[in-house]
Amino acid sequence: MPIDFQLSTSEAGTRAAAAAFAEKVLRPSRSLYAKLPTQRERFQATRPVYEAAAASGLVKGQIRPELGGSGGSLVEAAILVEECYTVEPSASLTVFATGLGLSPLNIVQKPELKEFLAPFLSGAGAPLASLVFSEPGGVANWLERGGRGLNTTARKDGNEWVLNGEKLWATNSAGWDYKGPDLACVVCRDVTSPPSDDQEPRDSIMILLVTRADLERNGPDAFQVVGDVETMGHTSVSGPHIKYTNVRLPLKNVLCAPGDGAAVVNGAFDSSAVLVGAMSVGLMRAAFDASLAFARSDDRRGAVPLLERQAVADLLSGIKMQTEACRALVWKAAYVLENGPGDYDARRELALAAKVYCSDAAVKAVTEAINAVGITAYDNSLPFAGLLTNAMVLPIFDGGNVGIRRRHLQQLMLAPSYDAWATTFGPSKQ
Amino acid sequence: MPIDFQLSTSEAGTRAAAAAFAEKVLRPSRSLYAKLPTQRERFQATRPVYEAAAASGLVKGQIRPELGGSGGSLVEAAILVEECYTVEPSASLTVFATGLGLSPLNIVQKPELKEFLAPFLSGAGAPLASLVFSEPGGVANWLERGGRGLNTTARKDGNEWVLNGEKLWATNSAGWDYKGPDLACVVCRDVTSPPSDDQEPRDSIMILLVTRADLERNGPDAFQVVGDVETMGHTSVSGPHIKYTNVRLPLKNVLCAPGDGAAVVNGAFDSSAVLVGAMSVGLMRAAFDASLAFARSDDRRGAVPLLERQAVADLLSGIKMQTEACRALVWKAAYVLENGPGDYDARRELALAAKVYCSDAAVKAVTEAINAVGITAYDNSLPFAGLLTNAMVLPIFDGGNVGIRRRHLQQLMLAPSYDAWATTFGPSKQ
Amino acid sequence: MPIDFQLSTSEAGTRAAAAAFAEKVLRPSRSLYAKLPTQRERFQATRPVYEAAAASGLVKGQIRPELGGSGGSLVEAAILVEECYTVEPSASLTVFATGLGLSPLNIVQKPELKEFLAPFLSGAGAPLASLVFSEPGGVANWLERGGRGLNTTARKDGNEWVLNGEKLWATNSAGWDYKGPDLACVVCRDVTSPPSDDQEPRDSIMILLVTRADLERNGPDAFQVVGDVETMGHTSVSGPHIKYTNVRLPLKNVLCAPGDGAAVVNGAFDSSAVLVGAMSVGLMRAAFDASLAFARSDDRRGAVPLLERQAVADLLSGIKMQTEACRALVWKAAYVLENGPGDYDARRELALAAKVYCSDAAVKAVTEAINAVGITAYDNSLPFAGLLTNAMVLPIFDGGNVGIRRRHLQQLMLAPSYDAWATTFGPSKQ
Amino acid sequence: MPIDFQLSTSEAGTRAAAAAFAEKVLRPSRSLYAKLPTQRERFQATRPVYEAAAASGLVKGQIRPELGGSGGSLVEAAILVEECYTVEPSASLTVFATGLGLSPLNIVQKPELKEFLAPFLSGAGAPLASLVFSEPGGVANWLERGGRGLNTTARKDGNEWVLNGEKLWATNSAGWDYKGPDLACVVCRDVTSPPSDDQEPRDSIMILLVTRADLERNGPDAFQVVGDVETMGHTSVSGPHIKYTNVRLPLKNVLCAPGDGAAVVNGAFDSSAVLVGAMSVGLMRAAFDASLAFARSDDRRGAVPLLERQAVADLLSGIKMQTEACRALVWKAAYVLENGPGDYDARRELALAAKVYCSDAAVKAVTEAINAVGITAYDNSLPFAGLLTNAMVLPIFDGGNVGIRRRHLQQLMLAPSYDAWATTFGPSKQ
Repeated sequence: MPIDFQLSTSEAGTRAAAAAFAEKVLRPSRSLYAKLPTQRERFQATRPVYEAAAASGLVKGQIRPELGGSGGSLVEAAILVEECYTVEPSASLTVFATGLGLSPLNIVQKPELKEFLAPFLSGAGAPLASLVFSEPGGVANWLERGGRGLNTTARKDGNEWVLNGEKLWATNSAGWDYKGPDLACVVCRDVTSPPSDDQEPRDSIMILLVTRADLERNGPDAFQVVGDVETMGHTSVSGPHIKYTNVRLPLKNVLCAPGDGAAVVNGAFDSSAVLVGAMSVGLMRAAFDASLAFARSDDRRGAVPLLERQAVADLLSGIKMQTEACRALVWKAAYVLENGPGDYDARRELALAAKVYCSDAAVKAVTEAINAVGITAYDNSLPFAGLLTNAMVLPIFDGGNVGIRRRHLQQLMLAPSYDAWATTFGPSKQ
Repeated sequence: MPIDFQLSTSEAGTRAAAAAFAEKVLRPSRSLYAKLPTQRERFQATRPVYEAAAASGLVKGQIRPELGGSGGSLVEAAILVEECYTVEPSASLTVFATGLGLSPLNIVQKPELKEFLAPFLSGAGAPLASLVFSEPGGVANWLERGGRGLNTTARKDGNEWVLNGEKLWATNSAGWDYKGPDLACVVCRDVTSPPSDDQEPRDSIMILLVTRADLERNGPDAFQVVGDVETMGHTSVSGPHIKYTNVRLPLKNVLCAPGDGAAVVNGAFDSSAVLVGAMSVGLMRAAFDASLAFARSDDRRGAVPLLERQAVADLLSGIKMQTEACRALVWKAAYVLENGPGDYDARRELALAAKVYCSDAAVKAVTEAINAVGITAYDNSLPFAGLLTNAMVLPIFDGGNVGIRRRHLQQLMLAPSYDAWATTFGPSKQ
Repeated sequence: MPIDFQLSTSEAGTRAAAAAFAEKVLRPSRSLYAKLPTQRERFQATRPVYEAAAASGLVKGQIRPELGGSGGSLVEAAILVEECYTVEPSASLTVFATGLGLSPLNIVQKPELKEFLAPFLSGAGAPLASLVFSEPGGVANWLERGGRGLNTTARKDGNEWVLNGEKLWATNSAGWDYKGPDLACVVCRDVTSPPSDDQEPRDSIMILLVTRADLERNGPDAFQVVGDVETMGHTSVSGPHIKYTNVRLPLKNVLCAPGDGAAVVNGAFDSSAVLVGAMSVGLMRAAFDASLAFARSDDRRGAVPLLERQAVADLLSGIKMQTEACRALVWKAAYVLENGPGDYDARRELALAAKVYCSDAAVKAVTEAINAVGITAYDNSLPFAGLLTNAMVLPIFDGGNVGIRRRHLQQLMLAPSYDAWATTFGPSKQ
Repeated sequence: MPIDFQLSTSEAGTRAAAAAFAEKVLRPSRSLYAKLPTQRERFQATRPVYEAAAASGLVKGQIRPELGGSGGSLVEAAILVEECYTVEPSASLTVFATGLGLSPLNIVQKPELKEFLAPFLSGAGAPLASLVFSEPGGVANWLERGGRGLNTTARKDGNEWVLNGEKLWATNSAGWDYKGPDLACVVCRDVTSPPSDDQEPRDSIMILLVTRADLERNGPDAFQVVGDVETMGHTSVSGPHIKYTNVRLPLKNVLCAPGDGAAVVNGAFDSSAVLVGAMSVGLMRAAFDASLAFARSDDRRGAVPLLERQAVADLLSGIKMQTEACRALVWKAAYVLENGPGDYDARRELALAAKVYCSDAAVKAVTEAINAVGITAYDNSLPFAGLLTNAMVLPIFDGGNVGIRRRHLQQLMLAPSYDAWATTFGPSKQ
């Protein structure tokens, strides 16, 4: 089939449903939480939004059909994420973070996983999943030889694994009641035996599944929320400082055995990279729409609407072009990651590009929108303050651009098999 | 005297005093207001800071010696503003806004003005002044032929002027108790007679002085606060929507007669432009210091401190170079505005450059610092959120860069007498 | 059909053929002209390249099937242009400029035009066409009321039109021997009657076809090359200063009657806008490939290849991401211009975006590649000097971004019917 | 003395003399070389310019008074360099490269050096000096452990040193007749004994002086020009590929003994860093002046001059502000490097900042000027092509920004004693 930019019926349907949900559920949701004084209260206030999302199929839609879910293509996911983010990023992120939390299961795809997925397939309640990876002290260099590596460890003890360590910034990792989410994919380091001299840090990385039932069985000291993080934007999102203490888990909870975890973590973040690109597009679109509306209707007491001023128009057309370029890139990255052409590394490069390029662009676009509007944009009753503080996380979360994502781009370019244009034209040598 | 970048004793003294005040008074002040829920409460909570500033001579120091004040050079003012802004922008701005409110008097410099300046010269209390200029609907094009012009009007009625109209964003314009500041310089449009066909909008611009006593004499309906603005940053600064209704003022309150007002407004904003440059430098410096401290001490669990990573180091050195360039530009603009070389238009161009260039740079520098630090910067307990939301006002307040300041730069370049390098080498033709 | 980024058989075939032509014919062509001292000699030296292009079907391929040509989709054209530009921009441009010269005929599509198209359909020789639009003094504001408008005029005299005026920068406008191209579409202003007061400048714009035979019939004084332009890059491209003097043309040579010309000129530049986007992608790709090869193989006498240095890698991945985003945008613009969704104005906005955004990006990408490589890039025997000087024309030719293309973007945004996301999701109101 | 931006009599005199020399000698010089086909011929054609410079005292003025020269302050040097570069960069660089070639002697300042300096103090002829440092393969990582280090070596043999190796890009290194310059400071690596395991590469770096007489004494095979480099800009500057073969030198020719060379090389490039900043300012100034003249006089056939268009004006005011900020930074760096405050590392940081920041800015400013002017700027008869190709070397020569200069900035920030604002306010701890 040729290059095509026409939405299919399914893609258009996804978009229409997402737009309707965004208008009906997400847009009013900000009033539920915006005035509450703490991150925890704001997070908890969005539970009805999450329930509506689950009831609408948005949670089940993040599970692949092979595991019983209703997940569509990554292009459709990108379309959906853009629609939600353009209206209400913060409440949306809690939903999409469950998708990230489930993505290791989507990658591993063992039939035994269905047991863990049951609450997310039901459409009922507000089941939260979390990819519990980030730590106090960061993880940018977690696989570097000579570095300290993950502080979160697992030790095999008979037929159980014992989990210990602290995590931070993992969205949804505390659950609604701060006693744990329905399902956590905890990335940790096997310390059962001391590492040999020639062992790479990645050889010990594993992923353990931790359910609410697991935590409850281990008693009240097993899981603690050490402290909340109050954040600049996304003020209803919860990613607190948590601590696991001697959490004993059965063998079936090993999602990835030691040595297999790092690749799955990276794979999960490859898909999410594309979706962060879509989030960026959603925010840029909102910034453009809001500043365009202002520039068409306001004249700052001059003789013509602001948009007739070239300086204003050039800022706006700059944002517009940037948004269009980013969306086209996100769509290409989404399509290619699932369909090729190109080997996995080549596809992954495009996913990383969607994340890095679009997130940086979003911050720039929002500041330009604010510059076009002028001082009025400083008024919190307009959307610009929220756009800026929400956009600012995009380059630094989900694998910070500087410390993580660009490093991966560098590694890909360094590989002897690097084939720069394979995702466009197919492999260059056959 | 040759080009010299060595602080004089007086300049070094100003800096030391400002740094001490910033550490002792300003740094703790954020805790006074940060958690309060409304802009008004946060503003009012900073009154002790303002009193300390007045007692320290910071208010009197914004009045020129010719009027009884202790104001120093504009270079010294820039040094002082940088020191305060690098520590606590929001509480500082309330103090510096009084300086802006008094600057029309500093420009006009009539001896009769001393009566109006008395509270500001005393060192006692917390006297607020305000340059009441901006309006709902903006003022970017207030002097454009065919535009609607200022909505705030004055009508001569016998021996009095009658003031009517609404203002917005004018810092300190409501006073501590929202019954008016100690002194307001209200920019308005003389509507005593209908304008003739060939009259330029600027021909009717005047400035009226309005004191607390004037408002009290006019009764409770004369001055109203229509509504507060909750802002993205500078969350303790008050610039609410206010309204004057039939405020009757004696002739002595005419600071600038019709036709004289626009030049004085522009002159006031020329000096403030340099100081906004200094504010920008202060914020960039804080962003650099905070991100450098992080990059030297944190390793994100790798083998070396972050600063050893080229990608991090290049962001930081970029901020550093930008800060140095901006400070050098601000100092040059400050020096030249008072001393030349170059005619007033040439000097003014440099003041505008300091405002536009440095404020845009500050926003960029803060976002780069955040990118260098990564997700930790999203935590409100670190300074980055405050730096971003505070910096974001710099390009859009005090004459927005896009709508006002760059337009003035354009007008200067269009003038037949434009002499691009006169402030560097002196006039090119003699 | 859904969003799809897989090349069809036809698209892949276009690409393979273009790549082969680029390697075999274009790559060696630089040696034909590079050392020659004048633009005219360099231009004339590329005639064998043009003949090979014509023989390969590249000229006929720029004519629509409805007129007997073999033109494919605009996406295919973009693919072809990228392949050629990534190897040899200058010799390629002469070929593509014939496409621009023929595009008014492709738009008008009258059967009578076949007579004029015969040489271009034959595959023989080196027939040149030219869209003769630009003038000394520029055309950025040619349709502005109160401006001087086009200097090139046509006056109806009985059954003939009489053409007069000077043109500049119109590629191929002089022909190989500087006696005129095989076909010129000359944009001019009807001055038969003086304009009425309420007439818009566009109401008088027309397009006349001028063939070699027409010029020969009018005698040696009818067409003169006033002077050559030696250019920074694209040093084999000819767009000299020419002059028409009393060129008498029969009625059948009226391609667009007065009032119809401006829309056709704009339409021609809408398609070319997409292709300039593709040219930009081609140059960025070449810049990436060349700097990557250097960074992988050179160590500047250090212990590791340059690409292991983060600062180098980040420049390269930045160029890569930019190239990917631009290509995706170009493909979307190409697809949408022909297929929708969105009305013509919406589609046109995307074409303009492809031109403006990608051309600006190309200049930036090349300078970044040079910065990554370092001083070696200053050596003319490497490709970087050529990339920079060739890229620098992209933002300023074919309708300069600042003066023309961004103004069109502004006009589109100002239209009451503007529908920002129609080319992505279809019309927003139905 | 306080902050001061007024030129002293001496500074103003330097400027006036430089401006006069630039107008009288440099401006016409381009016509001497521009049309010649090879770099060597163009270089040799500028010899009369160099002779005029020497006769004007510009060569002697690059030697410190302590060594018999007439060198002024670094601020004066920056003023002079700006004046020359704004008119004619290429012919100027040959003169300033002699200054760089002499700077190791200015740093070492031994009285014995006067013998080597005699031709440069005379004011007669066209004596060339060269700092012969760069090599084929680059020097960015020449002091890295594990790297290959310099290929140019010196071996002590009795009372002589024997020099061998190849160099590239060292301006003036071939002399006018390609038989060697009057004086070369050759940076090389002592290989008399094999390095010990704990030896740092810098421990073996030395600098040897090589005069014409030395080369002649060693016979015709001792010095060869392997090949010329044809460059993108600065087309009259000579920095060819040269080769030393068994050049025997007496002990007095040791300017820096092994272990002392690296610091002197770095010191030489610290001063030159400031002057590259001044070159950047000169080019930006020329770009502004040329684009301003165009925008004031040309209307692209519209109703008003281009400068009335906001999009054009904003590009121009952007260049203007950038130029002002850069000049202020260069002046500060120049002043501080000689006078403090701050320790040497702090001063050096500012010199590096002047080089990196201003050179990057210059390339950007020139491309913006070209964008403002439009297609006319592509015509070589205007100054823009030369400005772009000349500016493009600034970030990559004299220590490339990415590979060398920013790495030095990083090292300075990493030092425990780093004191960010010492050059502004003095040391922070006393």
